[in-house]
Amino acid sequence: MTTSLPLGVDRSAGTPLAAQITAQLRESVTSGVLRAGERLPSTRDLAAALGVSRTVVTSAYAQLFAEGWLEGRHGSGSYVADVAPGAPADPPPPAPSGLASFSTASAGPGDGGLIELAAGVPWAEGIDPAMWRRAWRHAGARPPSPFPDLYGLPSLRAELARYLRRSRGLAVTPDQVLITRGVSNGLSAVAAALIRPGDRVGIEEPGYQGGLEVLRRAGADIVPCRVDANGVVPGELPSDLRLLYTTPAHQYPLGGRLPVARRQALIAWARAAGAVIVEDDYDGEFRYDVAPLPALFSMDPSAVVYLGTTSKILTPVFGAGWVVASPALVASLAECRRQVSERVPEPVQYALLSMLASGDLERHIRKMRLEYARRRAALMALPGLRGDSAGLHVVLELPAGRPAAGFAAEAAARGVGVTPADRYFCGEPTLNAVVLGYGATPLAQVRRAAGALRPLLPP
Amino acid sequence: MTTSLPLGVDRSAGTPLAAQITAQLRESVTSGVLRAGERLPSTRDLAAALGVSRTVVTSAYAQLFAEGWLEGRHGSGSYVADVAPGAPADPPPPAPSGLASFSTASAGPGDGGLIELAAGVPWAEGIDPAMWRRAWRHAGARPPSPFPDLYGLPSLRAELARYLRRSRGLAVTPDQVLITRGVSNGLSAVAAALIRPGDRVGIEEPGYQGGLEVLRRAGADIVPCRVDANGVVPGELPSDLRLLYTTPAHQYPLGGRLPVARRQALIAWARAAGAVIVEDDYDGEFRYDVAPLPALFSMDPSAVVYLGTTSKILTPVFGAGWVVASPALVASLAECRRQVSERVPEPVQYALLSMLASGDLERHIRKMRLEYARRRAALMALPGLRGDSAGLHVVLELPAGRPAAGFAAEAAARGVGVTPADRYFCGEPTLNAVVLGYGATPLAQVRRAAGALRPLLPP
Repeated sequence: MTTSLPLGVDRSAGTPLAAQITAQLRESVTSGVLRAGERLPSTRDLAAALGVSRTVVTSAYAQLFAEGWLEGRHGSGSYVADVAPGAPADPPPPAPSGLASFSTASAGPGDGGLIELAAGVPWAEGIDPAMWRRAWRHAGARPPSPFPDLYGLPSLRAELARYLRRSRGLAVTPDQVLITRGVSNGLSAVAAALIRPGDRVGIEEPGYQGGLEVLRRAGADIVPCRVDANGVVPGELPSDLRLLYTTPAHQYPLGGRLPVARRQALIAWARAAGAVIVEDDYDGEFRYDVAPLPALFSMDPSAVVYLGTTSKILTPVFGAGWVVASPALVASLAECRRQVSERVPEPVQYALLSMLASGDLERHIRKMRLEYARRRAALMALPGLRGDSAGLHVVLELPAGRPAAGFAAEAAARGVGVTPADRYFCGEPTLNAVVLGYGATPLAQVRRAAGALRPLLPP
Repeated sequence: MTTSLPLGVDRSAGTPLAAQITAQLRESVTSGVLRAGERLPSTRDLAAALGVSRTVVTSAYAQLFAEGWLEGRHGSGSYVADVAPGAPADPPPPAPSGLASFSTASAGPGDGGLIELAAGVPWAEGIDPAMWRRAWRHAGARPPSPFPDLYGLPSLRAELARYLRRSRGLAVTPDQVLITRGVSNGLSAVAAALIRPGDRVGIEEPGYQGGLEVLRRAGADIVPCRVDANGVVPGELPSDLRLLYTTPAHQYPLGGRLPVARRQALIAWARAAGAVIVEDDYDGEFRYDVAPLPALFSMDPSAVVYLGTTSKILTPVFGAGWVVASPALVASLAECRRQVSERVPEPVQYALLSMLASGDLERHIRKMRLEYARRRAALMALPGLRGDSAGLHVVLELPAGRPAAGFAAEAAARGVGVTPADRYFCGEPTLNAVVLGYGATPLAQVRRAAGALRPLLPP
């Protein structure tokens, strides 16, 4: 098949042309018009047929590759991947491994002459002082309410619903949004509402140990679930989990992005198991190649709870985040919160509202995206890097016989702080690697760090 | 005995004369110079002997009565109470009963024409908008740190140590202070550090149900402990508790203030049982008769963890508080917090720092103290009121055969919202009463409410 596809673009529509093509191709696959294995027209042919520039089509294809709808066969074009509804879960890809977590232990600024490559920490100095002052001045101008709103400020919930639609394509209404203090707080609220002591709860292995600890404290019986280079492996998930905590946009810390087929399999698993998927979208805004993938939540709002935070896009000292879930679950979360007098400080909410409404926050994110992409590129010369072009960290896999702890010590001796991947494992580590974070480290220092690490690695 | 006491005043000292006399009399009792049952000189005689006004001595005696060092026998003067070190726990006083909690269910502003007498909520409109703006402007002027300090800002910990010394007589160093988001958050941190699932934990019955729920979620096996008009009854505490959560300054909700003898017995019990006492000083700043009692923490910093909050002195939408404990426990709490990426938003801490350092917060507290005292006085005409002259609520005991739920319905029919005391009980309620809060209700409305309730009560 070639250009006989039911495609067309509408220049008067508000949506970018590439996004129009992407949406139509996705629809063609899910509706069965395009079948697994079919070859797509070349970008040149499709561009000519639609009367658009080739760049537009290339960009649309890149997005679909990124999402896993298409797969490439070297030198022979683009093919539809096996993502038909009801397709069986894909078999585990070539055994990868795993690594690093939101640990704050090594996350401070470098002390002394050490260049600390801390994972999961954004760049505080990148925050424009004028923007920060403006946000808090607005917050202070709003007199305090008599009592905290358990759901969060209605105006902020509405503004966040719009932001999530713009930035993540989430079609949500304000009553699906609960304001939290961040991912841990959101997860803790979900656990209080859904988990009973002894319930089996899946976490990614390796994964975010902070999330594990939140679930453990809620009484969960923790079940580590293997991840590979693409993320969690749906075919291996036990059927008796009550909940699965996962990071599909950018697996923490391995960096995989869950492909469409796995996403479908994951949703099918959750439905069959009666389990809830908690989707932690901690740094979904930071992708440097293609637009972020649509959130898992969009595929089935009844099976997925979505968690977001300002800790990566702004700063962890801000302390705000959100849960997106069904209105009924949002109401349960608010009730659980009432029982323990939980709250999100109102001025923090007003400050976030101000930054969202003014566009300040999105301008900041765009600025940081560029900055982080440059820093990431500075590390790319190192051999053994894993993970997508996204986020604030990268995983460096080490040669066999080069234990991570020893490597970290050698790196420290050369003035660079790195984190052995072991600490992202709940059980026995299955990956020999270190995590390099560049969120909190200025570009010049990242370059120096890369230079210092290079001689420690194979040529 | 009369004026042969080793007393004297020093007009050149910075301390008020009444406080000097109070301190010396306390010392005389603890050192054994004054013994249980001894009669004190009359205020007139002692004033003459010391060359001070009678008001000074009356005020000193009132404080010592309030603290439980003295007891009065009607018409025959003031006597030293039985508070000798090692004195046995006092027998349970004439069976009182119990009631109300920090519930937020009925804590919103009155809707429609209802005058809501919500418990535990302060007056948001009493906060000077200029003070509020100033605090947040200062907060916004401080650029965000790269990563949250797990203990809280060092400058705020130091400032709070000074505040606690001034306002509550606590001799604490900054390393004994951990910044929290409030009482629940502090209790949750303490529970995470000290409680293992299945540990037996005592709570007051009736008591703060939010505290109970925090402890329950931490896996505690909850043991309700009876309180009477004076507070918790140390002689009845089981010896196998790991922790006791208590409100000695102003029992929530009954309003009792734990007398010195019970405080001593409580400390002795904790030492013998190897238990930790968690002292919730949620509204210790609001007393309308005498100065607040010294905190339990001062008696034994190794056995007591002290919790404070801005929720009553300022507003629950602010979201800050503090734990005061040994430096070692403070370090454990910070470590527990690290494990789950807990934080207190930094701008909230800077705003509190600003209000403390400028004196704004203490000016606000003084203003509110006067305001709340007036509102409380407006309720005093009602028969059946219980509890000390303190805090933001009062308990109204109802005649037998007048169930609280029915009374609340009748009150609502007359335009007044009150809270049945049942909801402060974990088990079967043993007190027929309602709770009347006046923190969030302007004076004129409190007066109207009192007028509306009066005809519902016995003459």
